[in-house]
Amino acid sequence: MPERQRADARRNYARILAVAEDEVAAHGAGASLEQIARVAGVGSATVRRHFPTRRALLEAVSQKQMRALCARAQDLTGESDSRSALLEWLGDVIAYSVSARGLAAALAYEGAMPDSVHENSCSAMVEQAGEPLLRRAVEDGAVTTDVTVADLITLIVGIVLATEHRPDPAAAANRLFRLTVAGLNPQH
Amino acid sequence: MPERQRADARRNYARILAVAEDEVAAHGAGASLEQIARVAGVGSATVRRHFPTRRALLEAVSQKQMRALCARAQDLTGESDSRSALLEWLGDVIAYSVSARGLAAALAYEGAMPDSVHENSCSAMVEQAGEPLLRRAVEDGAVTTDVTVADLITLIVGIVLATEHRPDPAAAANRLFRLTVAGLNPQH
Repeated sequence: MPERQRADARRNYARILAVAEDEVAAHGAGASLEQIARVAGVGSATVRRHFPTRRALLEAVSQKQMRALCARAQDLTGESDSRSALLEWLGDVIAYSVSARGLAAALAYEGAMPDSVHENSCSAMVEQAGEPLLRRAVEDGAVTTDVTVADLITLIVGIVLATEHRPDPAAAANRLFRLTVAGLNPQH
Repeated sequence: MPERQRADARRNYARILAVAEDEVAAHGAGASLEQIARVAGVGSATVRRHFPTRRALLEAVSQKQMRALCARAQDLTGESDSRSALLEWLGDVIAYSVSARGLAAALAYEGAMPDSVHENSCSAMVEQAGEPLLRRAVEDGAVTTDVTVADLITLIVGIVLATEHRPDPAAAANRLFRLTVAGLNPQH
């Protein structure tokens, strides 16, 4: 394939993926592939060449979001308020987990969940990304020393699982995570 | 049926259920029905007369535990330390939820979950039982006013869902709930 064609293919891939991300965010994992092709300005055959199945496209969306989550952790590590930086990142983890659950549920009937959506492999990668954020907040005396990134992600995964059937799962999950951050002690 | 026979049947039912509760706690939802009959001192036919299917037995175990949870809430409402009373009861809710998840998983392949194990109907009944405990703790200024019993149960259900594949799910769930009670603020 000549260089120009390869560059076109890369651009198409990136454009389809960016559109798919928006469409999946707006309409869930059942987002229309025809609509994605239309908005990306390519034919359905081009979408199918890059992503032979809906599953392949959803996995790519999920992986892109996870990489963004890891990049976001790196960016936030430079923030001056280490507690806000940690909580802001955990808010992004909640948003990702809510969308990943939607993908997982939609894919479940097709058989095993894709690795990229499975909580365990997700945890490992995202956990590592969050370590520096938690470490700084602990060093600043801004959060308890009793908690690990794995604990926080397990709590988030649990909250997302327990609220996925609510009318607004993201809002319910955020509210419960705020309660977890505050704890049960009376507020002064 | 003469009165004496009816009394025998009631005693057998109660004895089988008590033994089933112990066996399910020890061996999970796959506990041996033959072993249950043996320990209860009745024949297998007697077990089958009272509980025609394994599912019927597991539902009865679950319902008995839920009633115990509600009775426990009433008992604890009389305790002088309202915060400890609330937290002790929530510990019982965790223990029940861990065991109910085990039952639910075992029953899943048989089709729909029994209502008694389903989180929603469980929540409604247990929620009501917990209200007076939370109300007293809030009145005593011992816990935050921002939380509802429904919030606490949703957090517990989530924690249990997120830890059910751990080697010791009950220990993992208790640890994460303690973190939730403490919150993320540094400990003084």
